[in-house]
Amino acid sequence: MIGKFISFEGTEGSGKTSVIKEVKQYLEDKGYVVMITREPGGIRISEKIRQIILDVDHTEMDARTEALLFAASRRQHLIEKVRPALEEGKIILCDRFVDSSLVYQGIARDLGFDEVYQINKFAIEDTLPDLTLFVDVRPEVGLKRVFETPNREINRLDLEKINFHKKIYEGYLFLLDRFPKRIKRINGEAQIEEVAREAISAIEQIL
Amino acid sequence: MIGKFISFEGTEGSGKTSVIKEVKQYLEDKGYVVMITREPGGIRISEKIRQIILDVDHTEMDARTEALLFAASRRQHLIEKVRPALEEGKIILCDRFVDSSLVYQGIARDLGFDEVYQINKFAIEDTLPDLTLFVDVRPEVGLKRVFETPNREINRLDLEKINFHKKIYEGYLFLLDRFPKRIKRINGEAQIEEVAREAISAIEQIL
Repeated sequence: MIGKFISFEGTEGSGKTSVIKEVKQYLEDKGYVVMITREPGGIRISEKIRQIILDVDHTEMDARTEALLFAASRRQHLIEKVRPALEEGKIILCDRFVDSSLVYQGIARDLGFDEVYQINKFAIEDTLPDLTLFVDVRPEVGLKRVFETPNREINRLDLEKINFHKKIYEGYLFLLDRFPKRIKRINGEAQIEEVAREAISAIEQIL
Repeated sequence: MIGKFISFEGTEGSGKTSVIKEVKQYLEDKGYVVMITREPGGIRISEKIRQIILDVDHTEMDARTEALLFAASRRQHLIEKVRPALEEGKIILCDRFVDSSLVYQGIARDLGFDEVYQINKFAIEDTLPDLTLFVDVRPEVGLKRVFETPNREINRLDLEKINFHKKIYEGYLFLLDRFPKRIKRINGEAQIEEVAREAISAIEQIL
């Protein structure tokens, strides 16, 4: 029994979290066993690593340190949560995975796509998602959504400037081109029902 | 003004910490500015990472997670402490560096020398030590020093330790062969004054 591993990617404010909820509901209604997760996913070692990354006091943190910490957190989450669920035959909907590191650290922080991919391949070995959905929302639209959400906590990454978000967006377009079989684009600027419908349609092709 | 970066490596009980102290005294008497360090070296981000690695409760920690965390801790220590000291023209005596990861995680834990070297090259970029001194003490001698207790019988766990220890030792011999220009062997089984003399002689050749 082997499940399916589906990751969702996008810029801040792309609405992928809402899409994931809709997709989960739909698949469960169809009788599938679905698990939603996101790194660090309640894995205590990964949570502790994430605390170090997100601590707003850590302004001295080097970009390569950050990339290695993300890879370490990813590894532990994969080992303790994703792989066991796959072995149980579940459909895993994962909110961000390796592509986020390729885009955020590799491209936007200029560490280099290939170098960040190397350390992440060390972390994930052969476990790439069966399908990755890029929820496409233009950076200016996404950021506007982020800062208009009431009670949303602003973390260190949110404070990056609009140019950084544009680089992220362009990074995702680069990945779409680089992994055309694995990554599919869906229009995240449509109404949520329509976005979810597009996501479900792509997922059904691999089930 | 560019300093010199010298790392010291060896199995448990090789006595490298004592050698480093002797070397520091000698070089300071000669008028050099010397800094002793070891990872995490008081760097707060590295210390926090090290706390996660060393927490005895974390029995679920995957070996690849651990290797990535060591590389992350190494990166931050390098950026905040080693490189600034090099730029100030200091001689840095570092108790263990990248070779420890190659040997402990790459070889002894079977993650693969090349793979662990890849993630560490990401962490250190081009900052390899100018000289690495392998303080050579045979594994049975080193372990005897560590466990020196009168009338203590060797049990099953000690035997496992001996085998692990032997793998570490053979790992260092492999590295000596792999990096003959950078890594020099000194005889760690001699009297401390003699070991220090051999270390100083090797260091003076690069000053």
